[in-house]
Amino acid sequence: MKKKIVTFGEIMLRLSAPGFARFTQAKSFDAMYAGSEANVAVSMRNFGFEAAHVTRFPSNDLGKAATQTLQRNGVDTRHILYGDERMGLYFLENGAMQRSSRIIYDRFDSAFAHIAPGSVDWDSIMKDAAWFHWTGITPAISEGAATVCREALVSARKHGVMISGDINYRRNLWQYGKTARDIMPELIQLTDRVVAGITDFENCIGVSGKTFEEVSHHAMKQYPNIQKVSCTYRESISSSHNNVSAVIWNGKTLSTSKTYALTHIVDRVGGGDAFMAGLIYGWLTGKTDEQTVEFAAAATALKHSIEGDVNLVSVEEVETLMKGENIGKLLR
Amino acid sequence: MKKKIVTFGEIMLRLSAPGFARFTQAKSFDAMYAGSEANVAVSMRNFGFEAAHVTRFPSNDLGKAATQTLQRNGVDTRHILYGDERMGLYFLENGAMQRSSRIIYDRFDSAFAHIAPGSVDWDSIMKDAAWFHWTGITPAISEGAATVCREALVSARKHGVMISGDINYRRNLWQYGKTARDIMPELIQLTDRVVAGITDFENCIGVSGKTFEEVSHHAMKQYPNIQKVSCTYRESISSSHNNVSAVIWNGKTLSTSKTYALTHIVDRVGGGDAFMAGLIYGWLTGKTDEQTVEFAAAATALKHSIEGDVNLVSVEEVETLMKGENIGKLLR
Amino acid sequence: MKKKIVTFGEIMLRLSAPGFARFTQAKSFDAMYAGSEANVAVSMRNFGFEAAHVTRFPSNDLGKAATQTLQRNGVDTRHILYGDERMGLYFLENGAMQRSSRIIYDRFDSAFAHIAPGSVDWDSIMKDAAWFHWTGITPAISEGAATVCREALVSARKHGVMISGDINYRRNLWQYGKTARDIMPELIQLTDRVVAGITDFENCIGVSGKTFEEVSHHAMKQYPNIQKVSCTYRESISSSHNNVSAVIWNGKTLSTSKTYALTHIVDRVGGGDAFMAGLIYGWLTGKTDEQTVEFAAAATALKHSIEGDVNLVSVEEVETLMKGENIGKLLR
Amino acid sequence: MKKKIVTFGEIMLRLSAPGFARFTQAKSFDAMYAGSEANVAVSMRNFGFEAAHVTRFPSNDLGKAATQTLQRNGVDTRHILYGDERMGLYFLENGAMQRSSRIIYDRFDSAFAHIAPGSVDWDSIMKDAAWFHWTGITPAISEGAATVCREALVSARKHGVMISGDINYRRNLWQYGKTARDIMPELIQLTDRVVAGITDFENCIGVSGKTFEEVSHHAMKQYPNIQKVSCTYRESISSSHNNVSAVIWNGKTLSTSKTYALTHIVDRVGGGDAFMAGLIYGWLTGKTDEQTVEFAAAATALKHSIEGDVNLVSVEEVETLMKGENIGKLLR
Amino acid sequence: MKKKIVTFGEIMLRLSAPGFARFTQAKSFDAMYAGSEANVAVSMRNFGFEAAHVTRFPSNDLGKAATQTLQRNGVDTRHILYGDERMGLYFLENGAMQRSSRIIYDRFDSAFAHIAPGSVDWDSIMKDAAWFHWTGITPAISEGAATVCREALVSARKHGVMISGDINYRRNLWQYGKTARDIMPELIQLTDRVVAGITDFENCIGVSGKTFEEVSHHAMKQYPNIQKVSCTYRESISSSHNNVSAVIWNGKTLSTSKTYALTHIVDRVGGGDAFMAGLIYGWLTGKTDEQTVEFAAAATALKHSIEGDVNLVSVEEVETLMKGENIGKLLR
Amino acid sequence: MKKKIVTFGEIMLRLSAPGFARFTQAKSFDAMYAGSEANVAVSMRNFGFEAAHVTRFPSNDLGKAATQTLQRNGVDTRHILYGDERMGLYFLENGAMQRSSRIIYDRFDSAFAHIAPGSVDWDSIMKDAAWFHWTGITPAISEGAATVCREALVSARKHGVMISGDINYRRNLWQYGKTARDIMPELIQLTDRVVAGITDFENCIGVSGKTFEEVSHHAMKQYPNIQKVSCTYRESISSSHNNVSAVIWNGKTLSTSKTYALTHIVDRVGGGDAFMAGLIYGWLTGKTDEQTVEFAAAATALKHSIEGDVNLVSVEEVETLMKGENIGKLLR
Repeated sequence: MKKKIVTFGEIMLRLSAPGFARFTQAKSFDAMYAGSEANVAVSMRNFGFEAAHVTRFPSNDLGKAATQTLQRNGVDTRHILYGDERMGLYFLENGAMQRSSRIIYDRFDSAFAHIAPGSVDWDSIMKDAAWFHWTGITPAISEGAATVCREALVSARKHGVMISGDINYRRNLWQYGKTARDIMPELIQLTDRVVAGITDFENCIGVSGKTFEEVSHHAMKQYPNIQKVSCTYRESISSSHNNVSAVIWNGKTLSTSKTYALTHIVDRVGGGDAFMAGLIYGWLTGKTDEQTVEFAAAATALKHSIEGDVNLVSVEEVETLMKGENIGKLLR
Repeated sequence: MKKKIVTFGEIMLRLSAPGFARFTQAKSFDAMYAGSEANVAVSMRNFGFEAAHVTRFPSNDLGKAATQTLQRNGVDTRHILYGDERMGLYFLENGAMQRSSRIIYDRFDSAFAHIAPGSVDWDSIMKDAAWFHWTGITPAISEGAATVCREALVSARKHGVMISGDINYRRNLWQYGKTARDIMPELIQLTDRVVAGITDFENCIGVSGKTFEEVSHHAMKQYPNIQKVSCTYRESISSSHNNVSAVIWNGKTLSTSKTYALTHIVDRVGGGDAFMAGLIYGWLTGKTDEQTVEFAAAATALKHSIEGDVNLVSVEEVETLMKGENIGKLLR
Repeated sequence: MKKKIVTFGEIMLRLSAPGFARFTQAKSFDAMYAGSEANVAVSMRNFGFEAAHVTRFPSNDLGKAATQTLQRNGVDTRHILYGDERMGLYFLENGAMQRSSRIIYDRFDSAFAHIAPGSVDWDSIMKDAAWFHWTGITPAISEGAATVCREALVSARKHGVMISGDINYRRNLWQYGKTARDIMPELIQLTDRVVAGITDFENCIGVSGKTFEEVSHHAMKQYPNIQKVSCTYRESISSSHNNVSAVIWNGKTLSTSKTYALTHIVDRVGGGDAFMAGLIYGWLTGKTDEQTVEFAAAATALKHSIEGDVNLVSVEEVETLMKGENIGKLLR
Repeated sequence: MKKKIVTFGEIMLRLSAPGFARFTQAKSFDAMYAGSEANVAVSMRNFGFEAAHVTRFPSNDLGKAATQTLQRNGVDTRHILYGDERMGLYFLENGAMQRSSRIIYDRFDSAFAHIAPGSVDWDSIMKDAAWFHWTGITPAISEGAATVCREALVSARKHGVMISGDINYRRNLWQYGKTARDIMPELIQLTDRVVAGITDFENCIGVSGKTFEEVSHHAMKQYPNIQKVSCTYRESISSSHNNVSAVIWNGKTLSTSKTYALTHIVDRVGGGDAFMAGLIYGWLTGKTDEQTVEFAAAATALKHSIEGDVNLVSVEEVETLMKGENIGKLLR
Repeated sequence: MKKKIVTFGEIMLRLSAPGFARFTQAKSFDAMYAGSEANVAVSMRNFGFEAAHVTRFPSNDLGKAATQTLQRNGVDTRHILYGDERMGLYFLENGAMQRSSRIIYDRFDSAFAHIAPGSVDWDSIMKDAAWFHWTGITPAISEGAATVCREALVSARKHGVMISGDINYRRNLWQYGKTARDIMPELIQLTDRVVAGITDFENCIGVSGKTFEEVSHHAMKQYPNIQKVSCTYRESISSSHNNVSAVIWNGKTLSTSKTYALTHIVDRVGGGDAFMAGLIYGWLTGKTDEQTVEFAAAATALKHSIEGDVNLVSVEEVETLMKGENIGKLLR
Repeated sequence: MKKKIVTFGEIMLRLSAPGFARFTQAKSFDAMYAGSEANVAVSMRNFGFEAAHVTRFPSNDLGKAATQTLQRNGVDTRHILYGDERMGLYFLENGAMQRSSRIIYDRFDSAFAHIAPGSVDWDSIMKDAAWFHWTGITPAISEGAATVCREALVSARKHGVMISGDINYRRNLWQYGKTARDIMPELIQLTDRVVAGITDFENCIGVSGKTFEEVSHHAMKQYPNIQKVSCTYRESISSSHNNVSAVIWNGKTLSTSKTYALTHIVDRVGGGDAFMAGLIYGWLTGKTDEQTVEFAAAATALKHSIEGDVNLVSVEEVETLMKGENIGKLLR
């Protein structure tokens, strides 16, 4: 079985105010390098798969440190490009209780945004790959990024690589003169498995409806390439307490996970990426949608207990939670 | 509209054991400078008002650092006095779960306690002020502090400045030979808006009763200058979980806020000061008591999520919580 | 009244990943020195009793630091032995939310494991002691440790010292060629008060049954020296939320404590030791089993709010919690 | 005597790797807000003068935090502009021993770079000012910044404000299509006191020569407005050990300071700004050039012992060092 | 041989700004408990002697933590008194390079200052003691402290205990109405070995002269009880670089140690106490003055490499340095 | 040109007391994973070569974290073995000034010590390698390690791989029943380039002499396979100040590097490994011995400025130091 997952997207330097400090209180920032698609790659690596990430970094020590973060987690970095521009970054203020978390993005004009069409040799990357994953963040960054993403999708299809896309529509991002409606349809049309909520579909392909099933139904009719649609439901009691569950719609039936009460949240950034990796793991290993949605929901639940963006848990840990075993125990 | 708030009171160096360490475990103490009245000034500054704080500091680098803390927050420090004595300070051990928080005060003989009658030019400070705020902590510290507080009240009335007082009776403080009953009545008599609970009234003006309304009714009869009385209710499930609500009594009707479930408390010190600033904001901007008590309750709720004594939140954040929006979200 | 408690057992260097970091994320480890039996000694010291701990350390600076930790807490260290071998240690990864805590033990071949029969002058230690406490961890470590433990029990009985044993069966420990069934019966036979759960009895003396009372009943029949049996019940909602209660069985009646909802747990390691010290305190001061089980349950509840293994709380704090007073307050 | 100093220039978020960590080792970055011209303002504030700084910040919490840093130090921030763009920032790796310190600038497209001609009301700022200070960094950033700088100079001259300029030529900065030779002559022509070294003059006004005196002589002939020229000499034994001295040339005589052996350097960033503030202090208070160069050299020496960019020392401390008193003592 | 050293004096909470931060930059303070006389006790403990310290602490958790610090170091704390007053404390700003270190004392009205004559049972403490040590700080604090110090000296002489006194005159301390000249002569008259410099003698007993030998000669003539006088010489190149040597005058000959170049100083507080312990060690173990002054000088040299006030080094380490062996090596 | 360097040896968890704390003061330990041979691999990776390290780790999260450290630095970890035993570790106390650094090893019975003969497929590892490096630490650990080391040497010679060995004799290590003289000759006989000092040769092959040249001459006569011998000279003024130089003897001439004055040392552990990597780099890239010894000396000089065991510097940085450029500068 092919075991290589390929992901493509920007990795940023995350600068988070320590503890629950507000931005204006921060005397230092905790630093890590992460990005939605790369988070999926690392999580799949922890699930025992091979993973390669494609991106573009500045050719300075920040780009080197970002590369080393991927290497540390066993992700293949040989296809990463380097250029003269800056590292994209974001500042994170951790919410607490009723107070929201806040992010200040500072990713404009990054090395990734300047990625040039044709600069990635996708065919050599895809030829031994099992899965390719992209998100709606990438085409929103620049025309170059959108084009390279489409190139990846075309190559993936050519090599029979399964494709997942996390639509993840963010209004603030689309600044380079194109809208999501201009760009996304063509990309979604090349995608097999989609993670999207109602508003994602509305904003990206103009499909609307009252329920997730209804919207998914319409989307799949319009884009018959889409085999399954999935999304998470998150009830936010506070920054420290969310309730989370998930569904998969396969065109006919809806598989729904149990709901996890997530109290005492440690770090919720990357919850969606942990979910995505859970889906890919389930589907790639031939699980049913019922099993897959439970695995992915348990994976995202565990992510909330991990510091940083990345879901550093094993398949065994996810499965133990699914069975309701060892919860909160002291394992000696 | 006049927009200047004036506050008067001691600012101490707060030395808190890090995290949940007990005093005997502390290898270091986190340091900040704060005081009940100054906390109100800073909160009002974050609500878009001007603020000036009057106090007396030692003329050493600790006094300088305390002054700089106020300046950083945009509070006018030009009326602060300096002298030879010491900085008042307090040690804080953060409670957790069922274990209580504990404070060791070490404020005796401070520069503020030695403030001399007549040493503050209140008339020049009050002449462009909209509001003056004092608390019952100040007259408890020394005869000098009590006298200067009365001078401030007289000057404020002379200049038509609205006056609020947070009675905040603390038995341990009154050590200089006078009791609260000796001193407080004269000060309350000069005050328009009072924050007090049943025991505060009992200890300071000898008025008692079964309910907040009843006691407030008696107090307002005895002190017709009092226009409104307010207080918070706090149910303490644990150091990490309180339920908080608030009321305003205007002599006729009782306005009651919604109750906030405050789980995962970050720092509860300064919750009363955040509430006080919320009241002043509501009243100064012409809101009804209903609106004001909701604003003040939401403000104190948010305070519990902020590290330190001071409520570093904006009007917009308070109002968003009042509407139940964005609670615990990740705002990008 | 004799007031000296004697404990015997290994003390390890605990190296815990900071905050909620996983082992693979740790850039440093917080260091403290602790062990189940010594934790009981320190807790009793905080309850106003004298305490002496017997163990064996490496004669290097790690052994010196461990000794100093006991001295700091007022525990008599004059009977500690020193040798050439290594310090036992364990690595701790703190769980959070649904994620479990994990321990990697690295205690093999420690100075304590090499303790030699006859090397401790138990008679001089026991002659003015009121109580001796041991746990099932000690005889599991090495044949030498088991033998010295038996020597201690024999000496304690000779001097009329009351004996408690916390059975605490851990399958992974018994590596030196003997099983718990080989060794434990002889030790339990010399013990007056036993803390054990159903599986502990099953694994150590082969007694089984459906309920705690039933198993305890059988055990006490087989070992008539056992006067009372006690254990805690722990419901683990998550690493951050446990519900805890406790019982004492005196052969006839079952005394049951109230249940504590332990949300926002700070550190659960040492909860059992805090409970044990609570039992010894209750029994030594002549409380009824009803009072004792409530005291011990409140003691273990408070332990969960303390950083580290050791229950740094006073009798007054435990009793205040038992009365439901001051819970989560800010004591000035 | 007028006591207000006005400065104009960009303030960046400085993100420095802690201790001597390399960029690739940094798990966090220490954060502070600083800029060459503002450093001069703060230093003058510590010397007892009033100071106002003009700049342009993003209208987000990073801009707010930067403003608060100035306020904390008592600098007037009322003339600061706010806009939509980003905060300029730089990453700092502290050198040690023979290893150099390194800076990665990330200031392109900042809110300051987008400052618009005519957007500052210089006349109202200059009318009560005693001194205006600019550096060659500002006109290098953008055409807008260069233009606003010239507007400031014109206004300063109109109001009889003394002007100092620190030429500080940096080749990497001039990226917007103009060169230093295009822009700097016009600005230098409006300046009374100049800090520059041989290569600064060569790159900015095309004047060259073998010695500092010779080049200064030529420059003053070409720009008769220049009254004095000054610069520092730095011998770099290692990142931890520099030897520093300074000179002032007044057109006729050269005043030379003593040389300070700076071993055990704490933070050398901002050494030039500390020197500049020392010069302004000396000249503004009517000292001779001999006295002024000694004061400025002692000021920059002390700066190397202070964490951060800003010289947090008093006139008294500088003068004590000049006299060789109390050096390295423990003052009780 | 009797091996017990007794010391008497105040222990304060030392709050030091971390690293080289100025007081106004400190966001936290490192905390430790130390005092000149207790530092000697702990150092003697590390040299293998028994030690008891007598002092008076507040009966709160700060007093408890201070007691635990002594216990940790093996010092007998059974004679410590407790009272209602406050903990004396001092704030420390670490100097660097040419910048001086600074201390803000805040010890007025401490529990120690309120020690009452007759409250210490000196006879029971002195009866098995070998040495008693006091300093000139103690009688400067309060009349009570001075009286109790004299009581200690009288008891020590009664029991044939050798007495050392470190004169350590500090002008700022004598605030209670008596001068050093009023009090010190009577205490010095009861002392066998004195550490003092020229100005100490001048201020305390009015003896003056040009050289240390001359002044010591006069002092010993006036106080024939004094057997030996010793002092250190410190040349302060900077806060990071001192040169230190020492002398002992026995009435006839002067023994002079080698000079240690102390570059890269870690913490110079407590250097004098380390020296004092070195002297006592040498004299108590029967070394010559030549050997003793070398041992004490090497001890104080090593102290400068230790974080905190206390000299945590062994006899073996001091002797190795005296021999010039292993200096700066990596001992495996 | 083949560019792969292969190294073989144990990697330990290094637990260092923070700053200059003594072991008994440490409240935490900084953690990193390092070993002499792997340090060479990482340094070569930073010099632009490929590197693979062979070792054996425990199959727990500590082994995983160690593996990730190598991966992060780009070292090939595919040949690492995993087993049931423990992670070797060492505790480090950083010296300061005249005080020595100290190491407590705790590596007995580690997973590496249990490596089994025949368990590594050396031929597949060596077939594309350019250089193999081993040290005398490895054969000292266990008979298994010694045997596997010999297997590596035999395979390396078979594939024409150049071999370097750093003799590094440590008396304390040889505990398994064999001496260095039993084992080392056979290994040295298979080695082309040797780093050793006079005592290394004496203890390992019984060759002695007065000077490095003389001993090297004898060694090369006895082991004609040795082409070159090299060593460093270190003068230890203090833990913070060493002077370092190096030599290479090629059988005829001695090449000597310049001497570096290393003041303000950050971390001296790994200095020898940095030197070794410098030698390999020089020899592999065809430099003369004169050039090579200068490169290696400059490399080890820079290492002393880097936190941790590993020399994180580039070829460019080493060459810049060799030229005496940019020393201690602020590179923008």
